[in-house]
Amino acid sequence: MFPKALDYESLNENVKKAQYAVRGELYLRASELQKEGKKIIFTNVGNPHALGQKPLTFPRQVVALCQAPFLLDDPNVGLLFPADAIARAKHYLTLNTGGLGAYSDSRGIPGIRKEVAEFIEKRDGYPSDPELIFLTDGASKGVMQILNIIIRGEGDGVLVPVPQYPLYSAAISLFGGSLVPYFLEETANWGLDINNLRHSVAEARSKGITVRAMVIINPGNPTGQCLSVANLREILKFCYQENLALLGDEVYQQNIYQDERPFISAKKVLMDMGPPISKELHLVSFHTVSKGYWGECGQRGGYFEMTNIPPKTVDEIYKVASISLSPNVPAQIFMGMMVNPPKPGDISYDHFVRESKGIIESLRRRARIMTDGFNSCRNVVCNFTEGAMYSFPQIRLPPRAIEAAKRAGKVPDVLYCLKLLEATGISTVPGSGFGQKEGVFHLRTTILPAEEDMPGIMASFKKFNDEFMEQYEDYRGYSRM
Amino acid sequence: MFPKALDYESLNENVKKAQYAVRGELYLRASELQKEGKKIIFTNVGNPHALGQKPLTFPRQVVALCQAPFLLDDPNVGLLFPADAIARAKHYLTLNTGGLGAYSDSRGIPGIRKEVAEFIEKRDGYPSDPELIFLTDGASKGVMQILNIIIRGEGDGVLVPVPQYPLYSAAISLFGGSLVPYFLEETANWGLDINNLRHSVAEARSKGITVRAMVIINPGNPTGQCLSVANLREILKFCYQENLALLGDEVYQQNIYQDERPFISAKKVLMDMGPPISKELHLVSFHTVSKGYWGECGQRGGYFEMTNIPPKTVDEIYKVASISLSPNVPAQIFMGMMVNPPKPGDISYDHFVRESKGIIESLRRRARIMTDGFNSCRNVVCNFTEGAMYSFPQIRLPPRAIEAAKRAGKVPDVLYCLKLLEATGISTVPGSGFGQKEGVFHLRTTILPAEEDMPGIMASFKKFNDEFMEQYEDYRGYSRM
Repeated sequence: MFPKALDYESLNENVKKAQYAVRGELYLRASELQKEGKKIIFTNVGNPHALGQKPLTFPRQVVALCQAPFLLDDPNVGLLFPADAIARAKHYLTLNTGGLGAYSDSRGIPGIRKEVAEFIEKRDGYPSDPELIFLTDGASKGVMQILNIIIRGEGDGVLVPVPQYPLYSAAISLFGGSLVPYFLEETANWGLDINNLRHSVAEARSKGITVRAMVIINPGNPTGQCLSVANLREILKFCYQENLALLGDEVYQQNIYQDERPFISAKKVLMDMGPPISKELHLVSFHTVSKGYWGECGQRGGYFEMTNIPPKTVDEIYKVASISLSPNVPAQIFMGMMVNPPKPGDISYDHFVRESKGIIESLRRRARIMTDGFNSCRNVVCNFTEGAMYSFPQIRLPPRAIEAAKRAGKVPDVLYCLKLLEATGISTVPGSGFGQKEGVFHLRTTILPAEEDMPGIMASFKKFNDEFMEQYEDYRGYSRM
Repeated sequence: MFPKALDYESLNENVKKAQYAVRGELYLRASELQKEGKKIIFTNVGNPHALGQKPLTFPRQVVALCQAPFLLDDPNVGLLFPADAIARAKHYLTLNTGGLGAYSDSRGIPGIRKEVAEFIEKRDGYPSDPELIFLTDGASKGVMQILNIIIRGEGDGVLVPVPQYPLYSAAISLFGGSLVPYFLEETANWGLDINNLRHSVAEARSKGITVRAMVIINPGNPTGQCLSVANLREILKFCYQENLALLGDEVYQQNIYQDERPFISAKKVLMDMGPPISKELHLVSFHTVSKGYWGECGQRGGYFEMTNIPPKTVDEIYKVASISLSPNVPAQIFMGMMVNPPKPGDISYDHFVRESKGIIESLRRRARIMTDGFNSCRNVVCNFTEGAMYSFPQIRLPPRAIEAAKRAGKVPDVLYCLKLLEATGISTVPGSGFGQKEGVFHLRTTILPAEEDMPGIMASFKKFNDEFMEQYEDYRGYSRM
């Protein structure tokens, strides 16, 4: 009998090849252990509310009113909702005929795309066109739409940082393209060396690959670095010279934990460079409501802005978006509020600022506790989390651990992370899920557990690591730094 | 200079080939006219709330409370929300740690998938396994996931009804597969003749295409027919004999406007047939919160249930779902309530039943007004809308109209629909967007405009059609029936 369409052996090979470690073997094992009653600390994915972060009050009030517009006619509504939330809900309900239950335009509600454009203009000091902004069900969906339109087959390559957020490798596999890795320099605080880029492009071309686009993640995931203006200029110039589109994953732009390198968008740096590059380089920039002090992951809201993309291509992207009808409308409203939060003088302003500052300041302290905790282990070295939501320590594994992993048929850092999980309940992602240099091992953890739990988690990690080292160390040496 | 990655001429050809008429030329022109101040009746897409259908109260209350869980601690909450909505909100908040702001499991919240399984068991009288139910951002996303995993290249074919909902043609293009059309019989009330199916498969095979799956839409979109049990049995048997997976698009299962042929799921008919087919045929069935008396299109909620799909394939589908992290959580909660609505004795029960019955009964009357209106035009013939949300009349166009269209470089029914739009503001979709037999022309309109507006809309259509006929008729003959 021939295999049927949905038998494993006859499935689309591109699907089978795709890997997504953030919800891979470690996550599945953690879910099993949780079912068995073990307490699991899920730090595998940047999911702040799942670890106790409270939602911001004002946007939740507004969306609740938009979901239940009949409350706006209730004389008691003022007992539960402040006047500015009521006014804002009315504003959004006028922007989409039929409210939250109606499909919007496939690009998103025009009035909200206008709010996004105003936010970008204010942020960067350059004009932004709402017609070139598409709202999406989370940034991931936008990234996938753009990669889908770029990748024509395995001869098409996309430059992706290593270590990288595996959305990129997974999506490139899914669309049948070729990932062209460029290495970030761990010893230079995960900086990007243009020579590495040149080398990667040359190597890909020697294999017959047409390199078409480059991805940057700023602030970095999993690596946490913030790109400097100088570095961004180099990258933009490189893309221009090499005829590459640049995809700027900027979803962590609110998550900054140092003052030396504030977030600067690729768009702003590009515009600062002036013509011809500012008028020619193809740039798509991504943002989300899932990160920052919002952390509204479950709502699935995002946008992308296109710069210098030809109108006929914009039409094609619109067409593809229209096949899925529209991004979900409640998350579009969250996006509207993220780019246009309460202003000084608004009833909810002080409370909103208190809540959002509280979250970012606590994350900053947590980033510090975590980095210090990792660096206090003699076989662990960890760059400070300048931005984003992750810590990505390098773990020096003794040769005997590496041999044990080999015998178990596992990548060494997978073995380490599995043992960490079993011993402590801390669910991380092995560095191999993000890519790393040969013979070097990492893990990724979020900095999201509650601040008061952080010292306990790091103590528990240190205890596990000490025991692991005791078990496997034999003084013959280590994996290299 | 080489074209850049996002220049039109260098885009992925599969993307360029995809067509999605529901939001195509007609919709874009309607949007322009609306911007210019013309009143447009958007009947191009099944978007009930946009045309004034009110959301059901109970589910909106529950989701509003889930969005603003702090209201649950407010002593005044009982002034705005009934006790059963409060209880239900608490129930859903316990099902996803972190509430609506947290990513859920990529397959959807386990507790809600359990509610879906219970609904299916009750509906069909056969067991349903929550582990084989995935929640999705609308049914479209689920259809695309499944087609993506089935289609390996242009040698893979999928049987799709003609006329069809263009999601299928668009997705098959996007994934680089081949659409294998099978014609529905308009004169047999859009019934499905198995001989047409055999013919289509044979023809595709003669071209070297491996036919892997078949799509049925029941109730039909755009055609509105409800499949009989006998017809479903034939289809299932055919798929079994020909080694095809069956994709059952059953999103209109609540939208039934006659009593002779109630909705019956493909799963139930399959189970009734017993082994071996009931244990072997690959079936995936799709449902949504966007249709029925819910019409919550903007929330983007759906599910699919897999029957007889091998576990390793389910794992692959899970992996692909995980790349997008999770379906949006608010819509998952809508799905939970759709499959588990208020019960007799609940405070909100009577009101819920009144609202939902009111919507379906009005749609039934509107289906009748519309069919009768179309059939009152001498050159229009229209099957009754047995189910779903659409009317799909055949328009006999005079030769001079066809010639005029040719001169304008347009498909004749596109010309007709554009003129209808300009004259009346009624925004429809030409039959050519769904596929139709050569030389026959249709349009699709939803039956969703408010009931009180319906007679006016049909009068306005009739007036336009009479004038159109007067302009183009010369008694030389018509396009064939």
